[in-house]
Amino acid sequence: MQIALLGGTGDIGEGLALRWAYDTDHDVVVGSRDASRARAKATEYETELDSRGREVTIEGVANDVATERGDVVVLSVPAYHVADTVASVADGLDDAVLVSPAVGMQRDGDGLHYNPPGAGSVTQLVAERAPAGVPVVGAFHSLAAGRLANLDASFEWDTFLVGEDADARDLVGAIAEDIDGLRALDAGGLENAPEVESLTPLLVNVARYNDGLTDLGVRVE
Amino acid sequence: MQIALLGGTGDIGEGLALRWAYDTDHDVVVGSRDASRARAKATEYETELDSRGREVTIEGVANDVATERGDVVVLSVPAYHVADTVASVADGLDDAVLVSPAVGMQRDGDGLHYNPPGAGSVTQLVAERAPAGVPVVGAFHSLAAGRLANLDASFEWDTFLVGEDADARDLVGAIAEDIDGLRALDAGGLENAPEVESLTPLLVNVARYNDGLTDLGVRVE
Repeated sequence: MQIALLGGTGDIGEGLALRWAYDTDHDVVVGSRDASRARAKATEYETELDSRGREVTIEGVANDVATERGDVVVLSVPAYHVADTVASVADGLDDAVLVSPAVGMQRDGDGLHYNPPGAGSVTQLVAERAPAGVPVVGAFHSLAAGRLANLDASFEWDTFLVGEDADARDLVGAIAEDIDGLRALDAGGLENAPEVESLTPLLVNVARYNDGLTDLGVRVE
Repeated sequence: MQIALLGGTGDIGEGLALRWAYDTDHDVVVGSRDASRARAKATEYETELDSRGREVTIEGVANDVATERGDVVVLSVPAYHVADTVASVADGLDDAVLVSPAVGMQRDGDGLHYNPPGAGSVTQLVAERAPAGVPVVGAFHSLAAGRLANLDASFEWDTFLVGEDADARDLVGAIAEDIDGLRALDAGGLENAPEVESLTPLLVNVARYNDGLTDLGVRVE
């Protein structure tokens, strides 16, 4: 499977790129608005993996080129860049599954708060803006980027998937579970995306107020 | 400690009453709008505990009487009864810590959705309506009532506490952790209550869409 990480130079993109490259045989393509930055980060990821005995090639290209490559295209960009990013790559999305991990949040003195766009959630915004026929799946929202990107760290986390296309949800669930320690759970249709996305600020707040708890994820039982 | 469970005849009240009575030495007082119903349920809980070799007395009284007894008063009533319940017991709340576990939700075809009152969350509504000087703590939102009330079942769950009064938060955290398998985590001030409350519909949705997962709680790590 070819997995394209748009904005794959950012923190959650880095974590997903390293985990897929380290734990699986999927091909990882790092995208960025700036192709040279994508290439530099891809090389950095290759070096990190090589130091752990994992010789893999990670492509680093512009977002539109990465999109053409991807069977799965992950919008690992900040929430406020999601709409522009979808517009900029829309022409290359045929036959791809589009994945939305971003969460809109705002900060006050107490902590982070869920701040969804008018569509109801970032995932629903992506679904509104994606070309007709491109399945959209919300996933990977609540994974702590720092722990994900640290290959010395392990975790036993769940990720919650939302989307209207069951086959696409299953596909994303399968590549999620190819990452060691990650379990994919179905959270239903796109209308359930706000409940999935709002878990992220809770985890950030809990990490802030409890000594010894950092880079948190969640497991249901 | 005297713990009064207003609406302690309902499902989350039943679970908390049984766990506190079974796992701890706290005195449990079951409150209801209908005192005879409170007495009947308290007797039912005593019988259940006695069948497990735990001989304890559980009082069953009207909500206002329960409130007079309680060092901690838990509003274990549905979200739409919270404001009326606070108003009906306000005179007896001196020196008590008031605990809010309720969550406002609405259902559509996909699942349950977080539906907070205008105050921002049920916990903040309680804080608005409680008499001045009564500390309010949001807690116990995401505990699955069915598993809590089944003393044959065990769990390793977190509960997330919000409130402005650190001493009150610590007190509620302590009685929470007196329940076997429950860890209390600080989630900050009242402004963080919406993120805590919105976890509940997510857990219900995940249980609906994944075979074999029912009565879910959550553990962060």
